[in-house]
Amino acid sequence: MQKQSYLCVGLDTDISKIPTHLLKTEDPVFEFNRQIIDATHKFCVAYKPNIAFYESMGAIGWESLRKTMEYIPEGCFTIADAKRGDIGNTSSMYARTFFELMDFDSVTVAPYMGVDSVLPFLEFKDKWVILLALTSNEGGLDFQNLSLESGEKLYERVLRKSSEWGSSENMMYVVGATRAESLVEIRAIVPDHFLLVPGVGAQGGDLEAVSRFGMNKQCGLLVNSSRAIIYASNQRDFAVDAEKEASKIQKQMRECLDKYL
Amino acid sequence: MQKQSYLCVGLDTDISKIPTHLLKTEDPVFEFNRQIIDATHKFCVAYKPNIAFYESMGAIGWESLRKTMEYIPEGCFTIADAKRGDIGNTSSMYARTFFELMDFDSVTVAPYMGVDSVLPFLEFKDKWVILLALTSNEGGLDFQNLSLESGEKLYERVLRKSSEWGSSENMMYVVGATRAESLVEIRAIVPDHFLLVPGVGAQGGDLEAVSRFGMNKQCGLLVNSSRAIIYASNQRDFAVDAEKEASKIQKQMRECLDKYL
Repeated sequence: MQKQSYLCVGLDTDISKIPTHLLKTEDPVFEFNRQIIDATHKFCVAYKPNIAFYESMGAIGWESLRKTMEYIPEGCFTIADAKRGDIGNTSSMYARTFFELMDFDSVTVAPYMGVDSVLPFLEFKDKWVILLALTSNEGGLDFQNLSLESGEKLYERVLRKSSEWGSSENMMYVVGATRAESLVEIRAIVPDHFLLVPGVGAQGGDLEAVSRFGMNKQCGLLVNSSRAIIYASNQRDFAVDAEKEASKIQKQMRECLDKYL
Repeated sequence: MQKQSYLCVGLDTDISKIPTHLLKTEDPVFEFNRQIIDATHKFCVAYKPNIAFYESMGAIGWESLRKTMEYIPEGCFTIADAKRGDIGNTSSMYARTFFELMDFDSVTVAPYMGVDSVLPFLEFKDKWVILLALTSNEGGLDFQNLSLESGEKLYERVLRKSSEWGSSENMMYVVGATRAESLVEIRAIVPDHFLLVPGVGAQGGDLEAVSRFGMNKQCGLLVNSSRAIIYASNQRDFAVDAEKEASKIQKQMRECLDKYL
């Protein structure tokens, strides 16, 4: 909060999209991340590597991710955006991967398999589960928004049920910025939990609306921006533009904090 | 079908559970898998590495997985049990990882994020999505079994909706063996799709009931067994016991094929 920011920078680093001069370096993905982190860490409170992008490069990608994790400054919260979730012993393995092997603070988890797919992650002290509730993509409405016999929407049931499994000290929820109007009902169900809000920027979400409807007394928001920051430019001085973009969002956040906190 | 089998062997290879003499080899996980594959390939039609177990070992684990994939005989169907699913561009990355980089025939996908999290996988020719429908774990009932306003259960809606996205030529469904009684309703919704049925053996599912209720005219089943086969023994000659167990299941399957096909 010292930084007057609740910005999370998404490290969706795609080797086919980074400036071409980096391809000559030993580890282009890490080199890109390093410069992005240098340029943005004053303006953000969290980094969220999108695991798919590293995994798609095989062993080399995992090594780039490991170096990136080492490089992220102390005090920045780290999110493995992995959307994992499986039966107990398998979820335990995923938890070990992200919490022990990679030392992430948190991991995103899909709720479809229920309680025993989530609990293994909650057994790790000082680590967080970030559970999918209402996502920002078009298909998010296919199932998440279905009305149940009980009158609730599915995502509301997911919030209610899963909030019994953990607390606001070890669980957060993913709520897409493209669904800002739903934040009022969501806050009625989980007033104290942090919400991770992707979809501001490239996906068209609105920071002002998200902040107005989603903020609680502890701020309670992490708003993610990936492409709008990291691909602000694909020139040699891409980091300068990334810094400008992160700084711009942080200024908007400072205003929202003044207004809504 | 030549093998009179619909057995899938789950390669949930955990370095802390494999026979200790293997730990002296250069790549214990691969060496274990190699011997398991040698011992079981006559009796099974598919292998399903559980990606969590490889991922938890970092870059080394990915290398063990790559070598395992290379070793699996031609003609055996391969399943990346990864339970992935994310917005479009990220799902495309996951699809490239498993279909191109690792050359799997199929990948398990969670449905919670809807159509645009699944379609990117279906764009790959001759590859399969295996979508979670009704899973075998306790928590499977938390959400999958909820009654919707429409009168359907959530998993039934998942089956109906998602079967419009692909065909029985590129989609299958995960249906847990511990829910054999539900196979009747599931077959009414997706008569032609293959079903991947985990949970026979260690999780207590019943092969006979699964076959009776789940088989269609093309068999339409892949029944997975992991722990009961690969950890049949933890002695030096573990592969002999794995072979016996796989052979035993294949004999039961031959009988079920005679009875129900």
